[in-house]
Amino acid sequence: MSSIKDVASLAGVAVGTVSRVINNSGAVKPDTRKKVEKAIKELNYFPNEIARNFKMQKSKTVALLLPSIWNPFFSELAYYIEDELDLEGFKLMLCNSGGKPEKELYYLDMLRQNKVAGIVGITYNDIESSVRNNIPIVSIDRHFNKKITCVTSDNYEGGRLALRELVKAGARKPAFLGSVTSVFSETMNRRKGFVDEAEKMEVDYVIYEKPDPIMDDDAYFDEFFKTHPDVDGIFAITDLLAANYIDRAGRMGFRVPEDVKVIGYDGIQDHPYFHPILSTIRQPVEEMARTTIRLLYQKFEGVTLEKEVYRLPVYFRQGETT
Amino acid sequence: MSSIKDVASLAGVAVGTVSRVINNSGAVKPDTRKKVEKAIKELNYFPNEIARNFKMQKSKTVALLLPSIWNPFFSELAYYIEDELDLEGFKLMLCNSGGKPEKELYYLDMLRQNKVAGIVGITYNDIESSVRNNIPIVSIDRHFNKKITCVTSDNYEGGRLALRELVKAGARKPAFLGSVTSVFSETMNRRKGFVDEAEKMEVDYVIYEKPDPIMDDDAYFDEFFKTHPDVDGIFAITDLLAANYIDRAGRMGFRVPEDVKVIGYDGIQDHPYFHPILSTIRQPVEEMARTTIRLLYQKFEGVTLEKEVYRLPVYFRQGETT
Repeated sequence: MSSIKDVASLAGVAVGTVSRVINNSGAVKPDTRKKVEKAIKELNYFPNEIARNFKMQKSKTVALLLPSIWNPFFSELAYYIEDELDLEGFKLMLCNSGGKPEKELYYLDMLRQNKVAGIVGITYNDIESSVRNNIPIVSIDRHFNKKITCVTSDNYEGGRLALRELVKAGARKPAFLGSVTSVFSETMNRRKGFVDEAEKMEVDYVIYEKPDPIMDDDAYFDEFFKTHPDVDGIFAITDLLAANYIDRAGRMGFRVPEDVKVIGYDGIQDHPYFHPILSTIRQPVEEMARTTIRLLYQKFEGVTLEKEVYRLPVYFRQGETT
Repeated sequence: MSSIKDVASLAGVAVGTVSRVINNSGAVKPDTRKKVEKAIKELNYFPNEIARNFKMQKSKTVALLLPSIWNPFFSELAYYIEDELDLEGFKLMLCNSGGKPEKELYYLDMLRQNKVAGIVGITYNDIESSVRNNIPIVSIDRHFNKKITCVTSDNYEGGRLALRELVKAGARKPAFLGSVTSVFSETMNRRKGFVDEAEKMEVDYVIYEKPDPIMDDDAYFDEFFKTHPDVDGIFAITDLLAANYIDRAGRMGFRVPEDVKVIGYDGIQDHPYFHPILSTIRQPVEEMARTTIRLLYQKFEGVTLEKEVYRLPVYFRQGETT
């Protein structure tokens, strides 16, 4: 590929002159400009990387679609994703797609046009019909369809583990608190693991779910406290929901963990400064992020991946709430 | 500018055929291909946005450089910056630059090459010498030099306010806890406001600072507790430092707020679920983000901005620690 030096040499001018012609900056005599333009054309010289990308049809940018970067779980994930991309010189484009499928579709379009090399998607919107097979997309949590690779924590084992830990801590009637999305999400396996383990252990349990997103927290919890006053263990589908429950339970006169044991999911608390420190099922966020990007690179190279879903192991982190 | 329809019309073929030629996908008869290529050339048609950007020397991407997205203050800021950019169809490129000036220099280079339209920088590295005047950069918190516009919260007034609130809550010997960067940062005005107000009110005060970043929290606090056992009020330069202090003070037998009143800076707690809920100087994060992007757009249009530093008002948010 020709360089700016080649252009300068062919045109018989200095490199700075070529630069001024390209950038339309500074004075260049009309004759000189013509000579430079002729040399650029002859050498088929492309002055910058945008142009090279166009020519080579390659982008070194990966788009990350997530509901909202303003969420501690997603911001930790984005941190490690950017770090892993940086190792290979890729840039991260960030999109908060929460509640806006059209934004996600826009990025799919950018992918088709090679303006981004790949997409990492954490989406709960139903964009499945727009996603074609074998394109460089890796999903986190949301299992699109069989051709879109998905990286997730082992939600099913996490659900089983939460049930066992609640029972071990003394809960006799544990409840699963969650919300249900209209399309299948890997996170739903948290409930499944919880239920399967409860049935295996012959433990009485409660499933309490409302459509996602929960718009009215007051109504959600009021109904729960009214209909299930005897629950003495909570497995909440996220740490934030667990913390919300604990705050409200306190106001209802329930003590945690004395009266009710509570376990969350995610492991968003990085510092031991804020209380309660939740007992939680910790997702291996860094490993999920790095695995996602390495799988995406394999897709760039046309490698057929072994699995559809990569489930990474979780562990129970003891806090103050069990 | 010519569209794909114009090309199809001139070549006398269907739009889909033009698309197949451009993307080298699917079968196209050699004669047809030649006709399409001729039409593309005649109309000077550029098939995608990367190419258009090249032609127009414009990018619709803005780079955001921040120490780490995995920090609640920065992730809230990034959320609103992306949201404001999206209103005008701009994309956000995210870079965690923490401790890596070479990453920041790389993005400055992308800006010179028009691969990004502008940069929003929250940097504490000394890249000032690489930054030229009048280029589309807006800094947050870090005041580069007189030609780089800076958006910040009113750190000086925040420092004064914190001192007054500590005194109002009963502190007789308040301390400022912070860290010092090697280059000037707007955040240093938090200390200045604190000091000026303490002197104006004739209050005895302590300034305790170590070089940034603080590598050894234990050493930082051990020395503080040893040298300043009589302090009864804390203004910490960030909420995280305030929370860290409270955790350690508790282990030392100090009760907050009974023995020591504590005020942080930022306002990172979005939910009332975790305790202590810090008394803090709240930064107007959403307004800072939107102002930053609007100023950047003015720079794109060559507008000369009125001010070098835009300081947005802060307020005191009462929590459980004063």
